[in-house]
Amino acid sequence: MPRNLIDITDLSVEEINQLIATAEDIIANPVKYQDACAHKQLATLFFEPSTRTRLSFESAMLALGGSTLGFSEASSSSTAKGETVGDTIHTVSCYADIIAMRHPKEGAPYAASQFSEVPIINAGDGGHNHPTQTLTDLLTIHREKGRLNNFTIGFCGDLKFGRTVHSLVNALSRYDHINFVLISPTELKLPRYVKEEALKKKGIPYTQTTDLESVIPQLDILYMTRVQKERFFNEEDYLRLKDSYILTPEKLENAKADLSILHPLPRVNEITVAVDKDPRAAYWRQVKNGKYIRMALILKLLGIQV
Amino acid sequence: MPRNLIDITDLSVEEINQLIATAEDIIANPVKYQDACAHKQLATLFFEPSTRTRLSFESAMLALGGSTLGFSEASSSSTAKGETVGDTIHTVSCYADIIAMRHPKEGAPYAASQFSEVPIINAGDGGHNHPTQTLTDLLTIHREKGRLNNFTIGFCGDLKFGRTVHSLVNALSRYDHINFVLISPTELKLPRYVKEEALKKKGIPYTQTTDLESVIPQLDILYMTRVQKERFFNEEDYLRLKDSYILTPEKLENAKADLSILHPLPRVNEITVAVDKDPRAAYWRQVKNGKYIRMALILKLLGIQV
Amino acid sequence: MPRNLIDITDLSVEEINQLIATAEDIIANPVKYQDACAHKQLATLFFEPSTRTRLSFESAMLALGGSTLGFSEASSSSTAKGETVGDTIHTVSCYADIIAMRHPKEGAPYAASQFSEVPIINAGDGGHNHPTQTLTDLLTIHREKGRLNNFTIGFCGDLKFGRTVHSLVNALSRYDHINFVLISPTELKLPRYVKEEALKKKGIPYTQTTDLESVIPQLDILYMTRVQKERFFNEEDYLRLKDSYILTPEKLENAKADLSILHPLPRVNEITVAVDKDPRAAYWRQVKNGKYIRMALILKLLGIQV
Repeated sequence: MPRNLIDITDLSVEEINQLIATAEDIIANPVKYQDACAHKQLATLFFEPSTRTRLSFESAMLALGGSTLGFSEASSSSTAKGETVGDTIHTVSCYADIIAMRHPKEGAPYAASQFSEVPIINAGDGGHNHPTQTLTDLLTIHREKGRLNNFTIGFCGDLKFGRTVHSLVNALSRYDHINFVLISPTELKLPRYVKEEALKKKGIPYTQTTDLESVIPQLDILYMTRVQKERFFNEEDYLRLKDSYILTPEKLENAKADLSILHPLPRVNEITVAVDKDPRAAYWRQVKNGKYIRMALILKLLGIQV
Repeated sequence: MPRNLIDITDLSVEEINQLIATAEDIIANPVKYQDACAHKQLATLFFEPSTRTRLSFESAMLALGGSTLGFSEASSSSTAKGETVGDTIHTVSCYADIIAMRHPKEGAPYAASQFSEVPIINAGDGGHNHPTQTLTDLLTIHREKGRLNNFTIGFCGDLKFGRTVHSLVNALSRYDHINFVLISPTELKLPRYVKEEALKKKGIPYTQTTDLESVIPQLDILYMTRVQKERFFNEEDYLRLKDSYILTPEKLENAKADLSILHPLPRVNEITVAVDKDPRAAYWRQVKNGKYIRMALILKLLGIQV
Repeated sequence: MPRNLIDITDLSVEEINQLIATAEDIIANPVKYQDACAHKQLATLFFEPSTRTRLSFESAMLALGGSTLGFSEASSSSTAKGETVGDTIHTVSCYADIIAMRHPKEGAPYAASQFSEVPIINAGDGGHNHPTQTLTDLLTIHREKGRLNNFTIGFCGDLKFGRTVHSLVNALSRYDHINFVLISPTELKLPRYVKEEALKKKGIPYTQTTDLESVIPQLDILYMTRVQKERFFNEEDYLRLKDSYILTPEKLENAKADLSILHPLPRVNEITVAVDKDPRAAYWRQVKNGKYIRMALILKLLGIQV
């Protein structure tokens, strides 16, 4: 049975730390890794489009000297001919050495992994899991702060539906001395079950607020997310709130000098382009980290030691 | 003039045997072949989508150390701008070293081959030819049985419209001492012209039946195909017949211990998933063989000796 | 700031000559270049489909030993999720080493280049620029004639809307002793601003005519383009004119023995297939040159010396 990555909790803290260490070594010594996956093939099976994630996986595999094949949307796949997703995955697992799979249905990658002869990486399943985004976020915090503990992190925006937030809160709850500041409209608060499981049960301190500006001075990390209009019950609420969650150079004036601003991207307008030039804007470095952590993950799942 | 593979009869029995021998050597010694096509490019030009076939070709080329480029559906191609298929193929043949082409129109790959400066492989043209599937089937029989003669093979399902069946019956009619058992609804019998050309003229024995269960005990190989509802004249006939052509563990109880079950895939429901675990289910091994025989074919058409 | 190629005028005549020299060396010594871009990645970001151009870029990068990733139409891209083109390009520039970008909007590649961390090549922006086509044309003239001066070149067809014509006229106006013959329906004459800027201001001689047959004997090069029906004000004019701009073996009877016929392709019917066999037909050689000049360009923008 191959080792898969379906949910971030498939990995122990030790395994995550090891992946981060590998990624850091890749960043420091890229040449050492450039042929590590020679003669290996990664299939990217995207049953729904996600250019960003797909290209990150492909670039990661190519940077390891491997090659890629696959499809970028379901219409091109055999599924259109009535084949089950399980059979499609089984077939591709007869060709490729490892599979990164994205699917609009929650649980599809887990189900598919039962039919695969090679490791499966969940590259996003509906609103459910997206574990390589969480790994990317963890690597970014580690690189920005030099550690995965002892800091105050603010999550801002849509904390109700944002799966990357839920997953990162869960992942960080396994590290020590982290203060969580949850910043969102009342309608989009972090769900009770996430707070209960990840924070309360473990006695981890957190505060909730609707006001970004009042808490920004205390943050070491600010994790921004999109506030989607369609999440609001009425347009009035949306119009009232949307501007307070747009990050601008002005709002950053009272922030710490070593704040790190993260965003899973794509953004629509929740961080103005003017912020990009601020050295505290870490989200483009985060994009690059996404490639490096995926390189580390591919190596691990293929059992390749460099 | 490059050597193409448009129709399985473009190859002599000797050439087929040689391809099978090469594929067997690739399976035994993959490392020996892993750079055989270094610096060579395969273009996969799929004017209609077929993920399974496209990925099999791409994986084959990558496993030979070559690279791939192309398109997976016609909307992306220049043909949408009014260019002829001949000009599209001619253009791509100025870039790549070999082309695998799929097209919804019968004869398109042959026509295209007249404009190409490099070898063309027909990766399926409508309901007409799909020679690499036939090669896959032959390699699978060879690997399962250790020979391409002296056995009884049953073809079950839609024998009227299934092009893979026609092509495999034709190909096997060139080998010795093969018994053909044709199992299908009356409405979906093997066409008279196939029987006449491939079997009767050569005095090859065959039996026809509508009843899978009565003949299954005598088979060495069972080649299953899909029975598509839309092939029937009325739904009543379809409902009456469809279950008798679904392969289940129960139906296999009276089969030989060394039966080999093949299926060109994709399947819808004509083999239940429970059969997959039976060691006699050879169709996933068949998928892998599809990659190996395509590797052998690419080497042959490029004139590369390993 | 990386060096980009957005407009053909981004390159000096010296730089163009150097690219042509590199392309000629690649043609003469392909093996010397086959690993020049090992471990480098080219992203082909096609916000509108163009199979010909995309595959030419990909084949070029693969022939240099590099690898490719990307998308072939906008529906697969993050832009569909509301991301700006600038953010999409910035993201991909975090993964790849160089980007070839096509976009339906004029100016999009220039705008995108402001957000990229790596070199951007404009692979066509609407009816605006397509500098690698112009480089292809220049290399072809150089290979066919052995020089980029001292000849008479005829441009035939739609000279009003054909961007490749405008760009090539501009580029050639920087070389010496070239005679321009402009052959088109009155409705589709070369725009005044192109004539003014490229020819009149520099005192370069040119003649205008509606009659291809009368001028064909004096041409060293004939650059054909498509005459699109939708460019005419009324169908009557179209029907009256269209046949006079279709190149046939008959029309070539009075042409020079060393005429070179170019066409940017795809063609619809403006050159009959019978002309393809004429040794003066240079457009398939031109297709190959498109690959070689793109190889030279990729090397230059990546700063790789072979």
